Amino acid sequence: MCPQYDLEIVLARARAAHEAGDLDALIESVEAAVESGDLDLVAAVLAALRPADRADVFESLDLEQQRLMIGELSDEEAAEILEELEDEDAAEVATALPASDLAPILDAMEPDEAADVLGDLPGPHAESALEAMDDRAEAEARSLMAYRDESAGGLMTPEYIALKADEDVTESIERLRQLAPDAEHAYYLYVTDDEERLVGVVSLRQLVVSPPGTPIADLMDTDVLKVAADDDQEEAARFMARYDLLALPVVDDEGRLVGVITHDDLVDVLEAEATEDMYRLVGLDEEERTLDSVSVSVRRRLPWLALNLLMALALVTTLGVFEDAFTVVPVLAVLFPLVNGQGGNVGTQTMTLVVRSMALGEVARGAQARLLLREVSVGFVNGLVIGLLAGVIALVVARETGLALTIAATMMVAMMLNLAAGGLVGVLVPITMNRLGFDPALGSVFVTPATDTLGVIFFLGLSYVTLGLI
Amino acid sequence: MCPQYDLEIVLARARAAHEAGDLDALIESVEAAVESGDLDLVAAVLAALRPADRADVFESLDLEQQRLMIGELSDEEAAEILEELEDEDAAEVATALPASDLAPILDAMEPDEAADVLGDLPGPHAESALEAMDDRAEAEARSLMAYRDESAGGLMTPEYIALKADEDVTESIERLRQLAPDAEHAYYLYVTDDEERLVGVVSLRQLVVSPPGTPIADLMDTDVLKVAADDDQEEAARFMARYDLLALPVVDDEGRLVGVITHDDLVDVLEAEATEDMYRLVGLDEEERTLDSVSVSVRRRLPWLALNLLMALALVTTLGVFEDAFTVVPVLAVLFPLVNGQGGNVGTQTMTLVVRSMALGEVARGAQARLLLREVSVGFVNGLVIGLLAGVIALVVARETGLALTIAATMMVAMMLNLAAGGLVGVLVPITMNRLGFDPALGSVFVTPATDTLGVIFFLGLSYVTLGLI
Repeated sequence: MCPQYDLEIVLARARAAHEAGDLDALIESVEAAVESGDLDLVAAVLAALRPADRADVFESLDLEQQRLMIGELSDEEAAEILEELEDEDAAEVATALPASDLAPILDAMEPDEAADVLGDLPGPHAESALEAMDDRAEAEARSLMAYRDESAGGLMTPEYIALKADEDVTESIERLRQLAPDAEHAYYLYVTDDEERLVGVVSLRQLVVSPPGTPIADLMDTDVLKVAADDDQEEAARFMARYDLLALPVVDDEGRLVGVITHDDLVDVLEAEATEDMYRLVGLDEEERTLDSVSVSVRRRLPWLALNLLMALALVTTLGVFEDAFTVVPVLAVLFPLVNGQGGNVGTQTMTLVVRSMALGEVARGAQARLLLREVSVGFVNGLVIGLLAGVIALVVARETGLALTIAATMMVAMMLNLAAGGLVGVLVPITMNRLGFDPALGSVFVTPATDTLGVIFFLGLSYVTLGLI
Repeated sequence: MCPQYDLEIVLARARAAHEAGDLDALIESVEAAVESGDLDLVAAVLAALRPADRADVFESLDLEQQRLMIGELSDEEAAEILEELEDEDAAEVATALPASDLAPILDAMEPDEAADVLGDLPGPHAESALEAMDDRAEAEARSLMAYRDESAGGLMTPEYIALKADEDVTESIERLRQLAPDAEHAYYLYVTDDEERLVGVVSLRQLVVSPPGTPIADLMDTDVLKVAADDDQEEAARFMARYDLLALPVVDDEGRLVGVITHDDLVDVLEAEATEDMYRLVGLDEEERTLDSVSVSVRRRLPWLALNLLMALALVTTLGVFEDAFTVVPVLAVLFPLVNGQGGNVGTQTMTLVVRSMALGEVARGAQARLLLREVSVGFVNGLVIGLLAGVIALVVARETGLALTIAATMMVAMMLNLAAGGLVGVLVPITMNRLGFDPALGSVFVTPATDTLGVIFFLGLSYVTLGLI
């Protein structure tokens, strides 16, 4: 073995990087271990890491190395890694494993994570993996897979601790002793009645600090915040964030407790939803990642760009109407992009503000008319100032045409109008999309074409009049 | 009293809206109560709500009503409302209260929230409020106010439960019984040594399920994840999200435990940081809200729009170079915006992808060259297809000039080049900003001007050559 790949040295380096939280150095040391071809060494390095770091390092390996790696790890270690990976990446690894190797790993995973992986596998592969799983894990996975991916049911774990209203604190703690290791996070303990209906909640702290014989029914808070399994995951996450909940119980149509959404899911959903809005505003797919292949990204972005090109036909057609003006006063072609650009900026700003505020629940339904008035006013006032500055630019640029003053004045008015239009479009588009049942962020494709076309109409249309080109 | 404002009816309506989670109806019923002028009624309605709902309803009142309202509530109720409000809104209410009324409310607030409110007050008002507070709360607030607002120290609460390594489970639980009501969220119990240095962590669950006499030192996990008080709050939040932590201990330079960051802070910081990135990408201030006044928004947005106009001088100057071409072939003025628009789209897409991926910690330092190559390739390939479509559009638009084929071919090449340039600029700008120590999102102001100017150079420059205009 080459000395630079010596197990002790690589391990010591990995541990130091781990202590220092230096992920790049960690990945380097694992890559050195992988290059050495010594899989025991790689497994030893991985075993020394925290789960999230281990998953990151694992992700830096190529698929073939990942498959070899999984073979070296225990089912529990492999399960932990798959749980930490992005859903798609986990599915890719799982797809590469035969069902007989995959099943025991799925058994060891948290049921909600296992269901996510199974849901992303090709049908027949998922089916054979399910059949090879142990009966309880298989049943849990199948019941979870019945829920929509984006629903509260798709997010919850079915492993929670439910106390009974008719037991006392001592009995509950005894039950905790037996069950605790299996429950994902037991800080809230939900209380159910004989028919599994959710009737209350007790915190672990209450249980600890209450006298041993206290009946759970006396201790529990009966005003339990909960969601239905069909509710949207974003709704559930907003609910948890709003009321500062560490966990949120999920009930079925009959009010029976069927699962619990935990705080790590909350964070994941809020991050994913923010990413989704941010990406959709610029026409990116929410699944897009910097590590995707070129062909995947091309396929994902092309439709939006093509749609944009189609929308730009409105601008081209409008410009075509004014084409003759360019032969007479070519400086108009130099200046109109200023009006378009600033109108697009204002439209995009307003659109972004409205989309984010809607996502954060800050736009009350009754306040929409006020919001529209506000954004149009902001656009108009900014248009006054920006119009003045743009007028000065127009004056300088057009100074040799003898029409400079007229063009500058026209620029000012067109800028004011177009920035007000930017505010108008930026509010109307997301609100209309929302009313029609679409994601407001997807409306961004309409905003710039609208302000572009209006900008040309305002500036060139007015120029026709002021310059007497008709 | 007018019957429609009858206490029982309004209360019943409010309760029904509360049960149904219908915030709009809730606000309506409180507005009805406020209009009745019966502050007891308003206080009764508010008392029936959950803290987050209460704060929302409170926010819908005007400042004078809010001030009256606070007078009607107990200090604890008022404290809860101030805790739930946005920092600025809380400060506005606090500013309107005399120091003698404010101090007992601050005493009842969680220390980190009280420090935030005090930090937002005018200096002399904050000082008199601090002096009127009780000694312990004052000392806590002053020590928290010493930390930067955006640091881990500015986020943490100093109220936590620390166990001692040399006590046993029974002693710890006894201490919990005495202390629990004061601690914000006690699911992790940190363990300190005689000099208050953080040495381990025990979960509440471990405490519950372990035999009574077990020494804490035997039970605790000594590999405690922690942050320094000076660390950035975003770093702390990312750390908690990465390792799925419900709470994160904060230590000083000597490793002494000084506070704990809780999960509700994590959610708030992640949401705020996502909003900040999203807003900065389009030149909005991160403090911007849909309820801000027009004049506030104008002042916030104007500098960015003015800077954008300044940047657009590059485009205007470049267009000026080609001005003569428009007199000869005016259809060029109709077509160049297509190249600019699509280049801007690609640049903005790439920029957004890179900024978000950096925020989520998904761009490794070593992978930047690969990312650049990837984005340029994606732009180029999309440019091939979009260029082809745009070429068809150019062919149709320019059909009467006799130059249609040449212009269409020029369009295709220019589009490919500009979409590749969009990928290049979209990666280089945020990465350069980051290296220079600026927020990558702020670089968006350079992207569209760059692709606009390059688009004109590509399309009009090439046209000069292909059309023989030189």
